[in-house]
Amino acid sequence: MTRKFNFSSGPAALPEPVLQRAQAAIWDLDGTGIGILEHSHRGKAFRAVLERTTARIREVGGIGDEFAVLFMTAGATHHFTLVPQNFLRAEDTVDICHTGVWTAKVMEETRRFGKLHLACDAGPTFDATPDAVRYSASPRYVYYVSNETVYGTQWQAPPAGSPAPLVCDASSDIFSRPLPLAGHGLIFAGAQKNLGPSGISLVIVRRDFLATRRQGLPPLSDYLTYEREGSMSNTPNTFGIYMIGEVCTWIREQGGLAAMAERNARKAKLLYEFLDNSRRWRAHARVGSRSSMNVTFRGATPELEAELLARAEERGLSGLAGHRSIGGLRASIYNAFPEEGVRRLVALLGELDPP
Amino acid sequence: MTRKFNFSSGPAALPEPVLQRAQAAIWDLDGTGIGILEHSHRGKAFRAVLERTTARIREVGGIGDEFAVLFMTAGATHHFTLVPQNFLRAEDTVDICHTGVWTAKVMEETRRFGKLHLACDAGPTFDATPDAVRYSASPRYVYYVSNETVYGTQWQAPPAGSPAPLVCDASSDIFSRPLPLAGHGLIFAGAQKNLGPSGISLVIVRRDFLATRRQGLPPLSDYLTYEREGSMSNTPNTFGIYMIGEVCTWIREQGGLAAMAERNARKAKLLYEFLDNSRRWRAHARVGSRSSMNVTFRGATPELEAELLARAEERGLSGLAGHRSIGGLRASIYNAFPEEGVRRLVALLGELDPP
Repeated sequence: MTRKFNFSSGPAALPEPVLQRAQAAIWDLDGTGIGILEHSHRGKAFRAVLERTTARIREVGGIGDEFAVLFMTAGATHHFTLVPQNFLRAEDTVDICHTGVWTAKVMEETRRFGKLHLACDAGPTFDATPDAVRYSASPRYVYYVSNETVYGTQWQAPPAGSPAPLVCDASSDIFSRPLPLAGHGLIFAGAQKNLGPSGISLVIVRRDFLATRRQGLPPLSDYLTYEREGSMSNTPNTFGIYMIGEVCTWIREQGGLAAMAERNARKAKLLYEFLDNSRRWRAHARVGSRSSMNVTFRGATPELEAELLARAEERGLSGLAGHRSIGGLRASIYNAFPEEGVRRLVALLGELDPP
Repeated sequence: MTRKFNFSSGPAALPEPVLQRAQAAIWDLDGTGIGILEHSHRGKAFRAVLERTTARIREVGGIGDEFAVLFMTAGATHHFTLVPQNFLRAEDTVDICHTGVWTAKVMEETRRFGKLHLACDAGPTFDATPDAVRYSASPRYVYYVSNETVYGTQWQAPPAGSPAPLVCDASSDIFSRPLPLAGHGLIFAGAQKNLGPSGISLVIVRRDFLATRRQGLPPLSDYLTYEREGSMSNTPNTFGIYMIGEVCTWIREQGGLAAMAERNARKAKLLYEFLDNSRRWRAHARVGSRSSMNVTFRGATPELEAELLARAEERGLSGLAGHRSIGGLRASIYNAFPEEGVRRLVALLGELDPP
């Protein structure tokens, strides 16, 4: 069976060498005679996996010991609640950079715990990251989403001049480019785009920021539990941790995050250049805010969009429908998505855009 | 590489035919040209997986529509908090059947939300499930752990005569025998013993009990969210759901839960009979309360126990050390653990117990 070009926004394409390693490890992990799904999380073999994954993440991301690296059995959405639950008191204010669907959800959850200041607002079109951020007098933290999966915008650099630690949802662009750690208190990412399978998230948190979290929370709602117990307070998602390690090993083999960034920029450019020169297709996001991970675009008519989706399926280009909330089209081209797939999409778009 | 006999208490041995199917599905799920880890949770292929898994669970477990079947990105330990958070108000009392390590943790979490009545107490030896349960006047629910992984005891039938819905942590014996649904409001189970990989839990909840949960909780802390959204409010653990479905298919192929129970009883009997007739080894749990999943036992001396562990490793019998909290030895022999492995363990124990 030929594998398709999978443009899904997540869960998403993973590197094929990693899939092949996983196939072997499911039967027998590292010659232990027991598969990765079956190893006790307290045994030597899994301990080695956990250490290897943590080391790879630190190495690939350039993450020093002032940050803790945590694995949590949680999707990114869990952190929408966990972050304010841990760091916000009723009298505190959070500054939020509102860029789309995900920050809207975060605002709703944040209001349960404290006050909200809209530091910038990219609505209602959400076709760019905001130029100016107006911070409140004394925010507890400043929250942003580095890449907006639904609208296809991406902060080219983190919000500047923040008076408080940045908290970043990096689910859809973590490790797609060098990790901008400066100024950050906490970065979380659901794994299912650039890191591995769904059902696990990675948290990178500054130890001095972590120390300020609220005390007395239920243990598994308290980020500090994961730091103290090395992500092993309860049984972690062992397969997810294994997969994240293998993906990071693959990233290293590709040349690390700088090489990833270059490769991702090249892939995205192929598609944006076509769209900008097309008469029947246009990109949603504005120049300067465009995502190299999720390229959102529209056809001149709904019929044209439907025709593209149908022809794409025939050619093994899968997952191009836009998010159910806004429609249109979306090509998610994360780290593992091959350039050849982008070329084929551009060719198909060209066929539907005759001169 | 020969695979070992894996006596781990969880994550634990999975059926080899299921591992082989998973190896194939990681590359290409059901001929779709995309692997199970990479499929969008909103796409047709994963929808089919979710429906198949749900249908298999209902079929194998004999679960009618009065119960909802939910998948949550959570370990069993998350439910220690979620259950009282959803169902307990400060003025309510929970009756708890205290049988060991896990109920101790549950009591701690339950006290955050309401009152506690110790309906029975198997401590300090925890070598039997209690004979008598003394319920309080009007409990909100009655909580028990069907199988105590650490001490190796198992309720042969659920606590009788409960004046309120039973809530059961069935993590370590779900689907090892016919599921006793009568009287239950909610059953939860971490997957990593009898169902699949770690990082996901299955919840079986009576819809009328679910309707009484507290309103206004954060969406992912509210069991009703999972029922309303078909476990798809956020990205679920897609691989975990796939694996649980494959394991349930395997259970059906083996003859269902009655056949599982028979097979598990036979395996456990081999070991308990040896222990009861041995001079140098003895079972921890008392007759009538013995687990068919986790057989806990001690040697006459620490040296003997150490020798067993060393020799077992040499022979490919892995994971026999007891839980770090109580020591000794433990043979976890869940559904997928082969009878041949039990025979080999009995043979080895016999060698260390000369006549």
